[in-house]
Amino acid sequence: MQIHNLSTPALLLDLDILQRNLDTMAGKARSLEVALRPHIKTHKCLEIARMQQERGARGITVSTLIEAKIFANAGFDDITYAFPLDSGKITQALDLAERATLRLVVDDLATAEALETAAAGRDQAVPVWLKVDCGLHRAGVDPTSGYAIQLARFLHEAPHLGFDGLLTHAGHAYKITSGKELLNIAEQERDVMVAFAERLRTEGTAVPVVSVGSTPTMSVVQNLEGVQEMRPGNYVFHDRTQVALGSCDFGDCAVTVLTAVVSHQPGSSHVVVDAGALALSHDPGPVQLDSVPGKGAVAAEINPLAIHPSLLVVSLSQEHGIIQGTAPEDLAGLKVGSRVRILPNHACLTVALFDEYAVLRGEVVVDHWKIRRDRS
Amino acid sequence: MQIHNLSTPALLLDLDILQRNLDTMAGKARSLEVALRPHIKTHKCLEIARMQQERGARGITVSTLIEAKIFANAGFDDITYAFPLDSGKITQALDLAERATLRLVVDDLATAEALETAAAGRDQAVPVWLKVDCGLHRAGVDPTSGYAIQLARFLHEAPHLGFDGLLTHAGHAYKITSGKELLNIAEQERDVMVAFAERLRTEGTAVPVVSVGSTPTMSVVQNLEGVQEMRPGNYVFHDRTQVALGSCDFGDCAVTVLTAVVSHQPGSSHVVVDAGALALSHDPGPVQLDSVPGKGAVAAEINPLAIHPSLLVVSLSQEHGIIQGTAPEDLAGLKVGSRVRILPNHACLTVALFDEYAVLRGEVVVDHWKIRRDRS
Repeated sequence: MQIHNLSTPALLLDLDILQRNLDTMAGKARSLEVALRPHIKTHKCLEIARMQQERGARGITVSTLIEAKIFANAGFDDITYAFPLDSGKITQALDLAERATLRLVVDDLATAEALETAAAGRDQAVPVWLKVDCGLHRAGVDPTSGYAIQLARFLHEAPHLGFDGLLTHAGHAYKITSGKELLNIAEQERDVMVAFAERLRTEGTAVPVVSVGSTPTMSVVQNLEGVQEMRPGNYVFHDRTQVALGSCDFGDCAVTVLTAVVSHQPGSSHVVVDAGALALSHDPGPVQLDSVPGKGAVAAEINPLAIHPSLLVVSLSQEHGIIQGTAPEDLAGLKVGSRVRILPNHACLTVALFDEYAVLRGEVVVDHWKIRRDRS
Repeated sequence: MQIHNLSTPALLLDLDILQRNLDTMAGKARSLEVALRPHIKTHKCLEIARMQQERGARGITVSTLIEAKIFANAGFDDITYAFPLDSGKITQALDLAERATLRLVVDDLATAEALETAAAGRDQAVPVWLKVDCGLHRAGVDPTSGYAIQLARFLHEAPHLGFDGLLTHAGHAYKITSGKELLNIAEQERDVMVAFAERLRTEGTAVPVVSVGSTPTMSVVQNLEGVQEMRPGNYVFHDRTQVALGSCDFGDCAVTVLTAVVSHQPGSSHVVVDAGALALSHDPGPVQLDSVPGKGAVAAEINPLAIHPSLLVVSLSQEHGIIQGTAPEDLAGLKVGSRVRILPNHACLTVALFDEYAVLRGEVVVDHWKIRRDRS
């Protein structure tokens, strides 16, 4: 089967680029002497997680208990559920922890106490990370606060919790306004975490592991001294946002959406394609870095590395995408029925809208891999 | 089962509100003497489509061939695929048209010619609508153009195409900047279509049916003389956008997302909930009408009609939602583990992120209905 046999919209995955991205990050983790625990929320795919394991990944990271269950059922036995635990999920989490090593994350003392009580009642012991805010200011304890020390000490001392260490995500890397800020954030991520770990150790709380990671920071970081684990996710595919941030080049983007032109009116300055918000997501992309904000870059069906500089996906509705050209002649080749590939703003959200990848080597569809996007 | 037994995030559907919304639009279609062919892309649910049929709906509307197949397999035998056909989908469409009445939509002469050729080759006859642009300027022919006349005549005369008539969608109703513009757009939708139908009839092209519809325009329109069919979709649920447009009140919104607080740091001006972009979508909502743009309104777990005026979902990442309060005391009740409901900006996109509805009467979960969000 070739690309041109696929129905549109279709999610295309370039296997050569994927393998190169996997090799690059595995090599980076080795050279920085940290374990790689990739975040599978990006791909939600057993085949890709196995490729990560084959390249030395130590365990995986997930963002929901549903993902944790799916991967545990498939034999993955060391899983960090890197999302703040709330009391309503303790029973589900402990049930799953009977079948696989499930590492939990907390940033709330009352929840940690409820977890200890529940684990004690079941005579279970569960590994737990302390979520730390290294600058994103979304979740996680303030590492300069007394509360952070108090919570770390509780996790360290609670008899039915095993204290894994400190975990953070430098998501503010996605908010930079110029590429030169990225390395600063990567260094801040390490510095904040290492300083907090030292402070805890000085006060008598052992910190086994410091875990950091985002694709932008891990793409540029040069020194992870004092850190033992990284958890990037998006690097397997990259996307238009990562290109804008400076994490990668267009040629490193492994996932594109194949789409057909479905409307092109005479004299119009736009065409309509069959990739809308349910094929690309409404993720706004790197608006603060983009001179021309858009919902996706446009490339040829067959040579996707050739991004068309004067075409852009400018808006989306549920199943419609609008591609505009800077001049009407840019649209001349886009008759109804012709096809292009869209490089999405955000690969993670795009993937979660499809049931499967069409896996490509060049123009040949060599496989179809299921996307485990189950929500219940 | 009660609401508090559900895992979060969960998609809640209030059955009483749903039934009232279905009754209201069915009554409106009867009083305006037009057929109702509801767009099922909003709910993707066989149970709800059957409730629409029981209330007199004449056929259904879909936005993809996958939706068409799913509903045809479930026994729905009169389906309008209201998306511009491209040549790459002709074979699939004609295959399905052998099993159910599938009404196609075109706005491109070359595609119409290819469809006629393909249908002739299979000795099939298929009903086809002409897609008309009544002001949205997305897809559809310009009704004042010679091209529109030429294409309508072709559809009328092609031996293997049955000309159903003229179809439009006044999606520009979603772009109004004040509520008083909405009725003008509803009247424009009708006026443009009726005038074009008259022009075609004068020139000898019979127009069997004029089909219009969007939830905002159908909610306010008072006169559909010259129109025979409406195709609203979102009205079954409504959402925060429809409230802002003036289509409905908060009490008419049938779908909410149940979510738990997962992080609330001491002294913070925000909390984190477990409903992110994969539970609510990044749909920006009615930004041009909103004094405070947001990603969803916040209501209590048990009394969702009481929208909290000083809380708002302000940003989303993949699984995280950020709720801010106008004052820190607004967040006092939102400890980790407590729950709220989010009224989404856009019900259609929110529903497409879940596998099922938890169907409620009051606080009791009376059923679970599958969402047919298959993409392949």
